[in-house]
Amino acid sequence: MPEKKKIDTKLTILEHGARLVHLNGYHNTGIKDVLLAANIPKGSFYFYFQSKEDFGLQLIDFFLGMNNEKTAQSLQNTDLKPLERLKVFYDDFLHFFEENECKLGCPIGNLSLELGDINETFRLRLRSGLDVMKNMIEECLKDAVKQNDIHPDISTSELAEYLVNSWEGALISMKASKSTQPLKIFDYMVFNVVLR
Amino acid sequence: MPEKKKIDTKLTILEHGARLVHLNGYHNTGIKDVLLAANIPKGSFYFYFQSKEDFGLQLIDFFLGMNNEKTAQSLQNTDLKPLERLKVFYDDFLHFFEENECKLGCPIGNLSLELGDINETFRLRLRSGLDVMKNMIEECLKDAVKQNDIHPDISTSELAEYLVNSWEGALISMKASKSTQPLKIFDYMVFNVVLR
Repeated sequence: MPEKKKIDTKLTILEHGARLVHLNGYHNTGIKDVLLAANIPKGSFYFYFQSKEDFGLQLIDFFLGMNNEKTAQSLQNTDLKPLERLKVFYDDFLHFFEENECKLGCPIGNLSLELGDINETFRLRLRSGLDVMKNMIEECLKDAVKQNDIHPDISTSELAEYLVNSWEGALISMKASKSTQPLKIFDYMVFNVVLR
Repeated sequence: MPEKKKIDTKLTILEHGARLVHLNGYHNTGIKDVLLAANIPKGSFYFYFQSKEDFGLQLIDFFLGMNNEKTAQSLQNTDLKPLERLKVFYDDFLHFFEENECKLGCPIGNLSLELGDINETFRLRLRSGLDVMKNMIEECLKDAVKQNDIHPDISTSELAEYLVNSWEGALISMKASKSTQPLKIFDYMVFNVVLR
């Protein structure tokens, strides 16, 4: 098989796998469901991935790549002040979840809860994934400190970790409530209390 | 079978099921694993539960019962001021997770992420579970308002929802980090920033 076709097919499997795992979880998604959705012949999975675990680990990178594209537009938009960028970042996700019936949540958070205790290889990759998100938020907070928009004594690293985690928790409640109200409460508390 | 023996056996199944589902998740726990752990003969499961879903729903009530016992000791200890009660509540859980190698997390949060999108019956029961936790925190916050320990203009309902969700998110990060640092950051932010 030509290398380009192999890469395209692998990407197709990852795209369909991402959608199914995002919605249904890792254990609840079978390889045959992914291949069926991707319209790829049964039995060819192991031509592209060594194992379901290898597929899952590559999915994490795929999710992070999707996330990076989405967040770069807001968090790195230097036309806006740092805290305005952060606001747009969360507003964009709020709209995404409004359009997606409050389903899905964050794939990195979902997989961390599902696999964090039972698979060390996944856990380490997922912690790196949370760090990617944390670091993007922290860069924005550091800019906010430079511009005197938040207090210089605050640890931007701890604040960024707190924001990432609190957002992940708001998504748990969103999924259980089928409402964006938990995200709106997060937004209110962050921009009117925490960052004041 | 005498009714008492039936109730005891059912409780034994729920206790072992709770431990396995808390650690491994719902889909990743088979009925046969639970029966093996509980030392109950195969095939007798359906004498106690109508289905795996019925078992899962009863597990949620079992988890909430465990949680109520644990939290009543702290959140309802009127020897302490309201915000001191809240601090003890979170400290008790911090110690629990230190002793449990940062595993498990909150069963209600775990199941909300795993099942919230794919099973409406579970979702509604899980949202009720989050509300039980939220209401306990809110009672404590209302007492704090009465004693002028937090600003009377704040919505105790929204603040309680925010605290429950942010804690759930800190547990995601704890599980991915295998460290209680996310819980300590939550504690610092809540008691030094949010509730100030």
